[in-house]
Amino acid sequence: MNSMPQHLDPVAGRYVQMDDLKWADFPKGLSQGGITWKLLNVSPEMGAWTAYYKCPKGSSFAPHVHIGPGEYYLTKGRMTVRGGSGEGGETAVAPGYGYEPCNALHVQTFFEEDSEFYMTFLGPLNFVDDDGNTVALVTWKDAQDAWEAATSG
Amino acid sequence: MNSMPQHLDPVAGRYVQMDDLKWADFPKGLSQGGITWKLLNVSPEMGAWTAYYKCPKGSSFAPHVHIGPGEYYLTKGRMTVRGGSGEGGETAVAPGYGYEPCNALHVQTFFEEDSEFYMTFLGPLNFVDDDGNTVALVTWKDAQDAWEAATSG
Amino acid sequence: MNSMPQHLDPVAGRYVQMDDLKWADFPKGLSQGGITWKLLNVSPEMGAWTAYYKCPKGSSFAPHVHIGPGEYYLTKGRMTVRGGSGEGGETAVAPGYGYEPCNALHVQTFFEEDSEFYMTFLGPLNFVDDDGNTVALVTWKDAQDAWEAATSG
Amino acid sequence: MNSMPQHLDPVAGRYVQMDDLKWADFPKGLSQGGITWKLLNVSPEMGAWTAYYKCPKGSSFAPHVHIGPGEYYLTKGRMTVRGGSGEGGETAVAPGYGYEPCNALHVQTFFEEDSEFYMTFLGPLNFVDDDGNTVALVTWKDAQDAWEAATSG
Repeated sequence: MNSMPQHLDPVAGRYVQMDDLKWADFPKGLSQGGITWKLLNVSPEMGAWTAYYKCPKGSSFAPHVHIGPGEYYLTKGRMTVRGGSGEGGETAVAPGYGYEPCNALHVQTFFEEDSEFYMTFLGPLNFVDDDGNTVALVTWKDAQDAWEAATSG
Repeated sequence: MNSMPQHLDPVAGRYVQMDDLKWADFPKGLSQGGITWKLLNVSPEMGAWTAYYKCPKGSSFAPHVHIGPGEYYLTKGRMTVRGGSGEGGETAVAPGYGYEPCNALHVQTFFEEDSEFYMTFLGPLNFVDDDGNTVALVTWKDAQDAWEAATSG
Repeated sequence: MNSMPQHLDPVAGRYVQMDDLKWADFPKGLSQGGITWKLLNVSPEMGAWTAYYKCPKGSSFAPHVHIGPGEYYLTKGRMTVRGGSGEGGETAVAPGYGYEPCNALHVQTFFEEDSEFYMTFLGPLNFVDDDGNTVALVTWKDAQDAWEAATSG
Repeated sequence: MNSMPQHLDPVAGRYVQMDDLKWADFPKGLSQGGITWKLLNVSPEMGAWTAYYKCPKGSSFAPHVHIGPGEYYLTKGRMTVRGGSGEGGETAVAPGYGYEPCNALHVQTFFEEDSEFYMTFLGPLNFVDDDGNTVALVTWKDAQDAWEAATSG
């Protein structure tokens, strides 16, 4: 027990040279078709994280719920989220920006063309089965662990 | 598809007269010993929520992980978190303030005396089984749904 | 320049025994009537902070804008914000909860009775003059510096 | 006064086709050398906002403090922040990612080449004079107002 609040120092800035990073395979159970990624940052206090994804034509992410808001910047290609614009979702075409709110369910995120996007996340992704049960809850720490396992050695 | 960012207005302030609210039972699967609560606020954009809890002597919350940071103000009684101060956790004694970080696992939160606390949450609580698998992921919306179901009619 | 994202560890939990803390004077330029306070936590990554205030009858805070959302739990007394409920604001009566949104201007926060409240802040308070110009921008770090200056020695 | 917490609905997703947006001049008092920008999103509850900037060779931003964390993705060119890597800051080279923490002071952000970057902000930018006094505090709402003024009519 402490009687005084802990003294805390400002957080440091950080920089990543993106093209110096190798691509890592995104976990197979959570995606199909050969998606690769680069982790750029984690923010342990807020539970935020930032990554860059490369998604070949025909690839997709497994169903997931955004537990906090996520923002993407599609730099290349075409991405359909929440069924695409024909079914009440969106079809993003590069260069496109999207805001996915807290609790957004993405039944399928599909790439009709070779695509790339940058994304910031507040909170985890909750990958779910058809009944909405959690298959994998990917927090900032799981993202960091997966990245470091894939890029070490 | 929109070519312009959506115009958004400032969020409104809100007020709740706490003693006008009735106590609702906290879900039985997630707690033991007769814990009751009052939901005070939800913040859908951030996924934050705020509540007040009344915990009788001997009651406890089921094991859960804080998906984002949570801050409590224990106004009455005594609460042991993460095993209590004898086992590397904390024993909070009113009036006590605690900051539970993102990803904190609370295997058992136990009340040795009649206790009450106010708590703000960023992100959901992930109630888990002994293997760490998700039993219930309680987001701001689940909290609101549970509260409204308990207090309507 | 780094080619890899920095490895970051989970943030630690923390606890403050509130009644062990002495009351510090709240800065005179930002309040009137003898308000005292206790700083409970700062969160440097998000820029959040948490404090407890004791406000004698007749005291008030100088005009300020909440730069991010703030939530208060009035534990004792009566507080009028934004002119009080008679003028479009709120009159909070303990026990009362209030959510003050991002950009809320509080021209005067006044205490008609001896009052106390607990408050969590995301982002700074921007104390302003009659023209809305910044007099003092109180971030988490300014709050910590003021607290530590008042309680050291 | 309300006795019940307000019912709030989930926030909606949103999409912006970035190349359909025209470039707007970034305010002259806050930058030099012809910087233009596109506002992509505002998040009024958190006070967050997202924008894309085009910065000609030789342009710069006036001194400012990041009131909350900001993350940039430099898509083109070269940007020196906090004096550049030769003086303890960073020199970012596209494609580069940077995390600027809460309270980071950017005395000068300078572009040695034609450059472009995408940036997410939590909280406002505090543009300051040489003494650190606030010249302009640019919140999400000021960003939206400036954007809408520049792009209407």
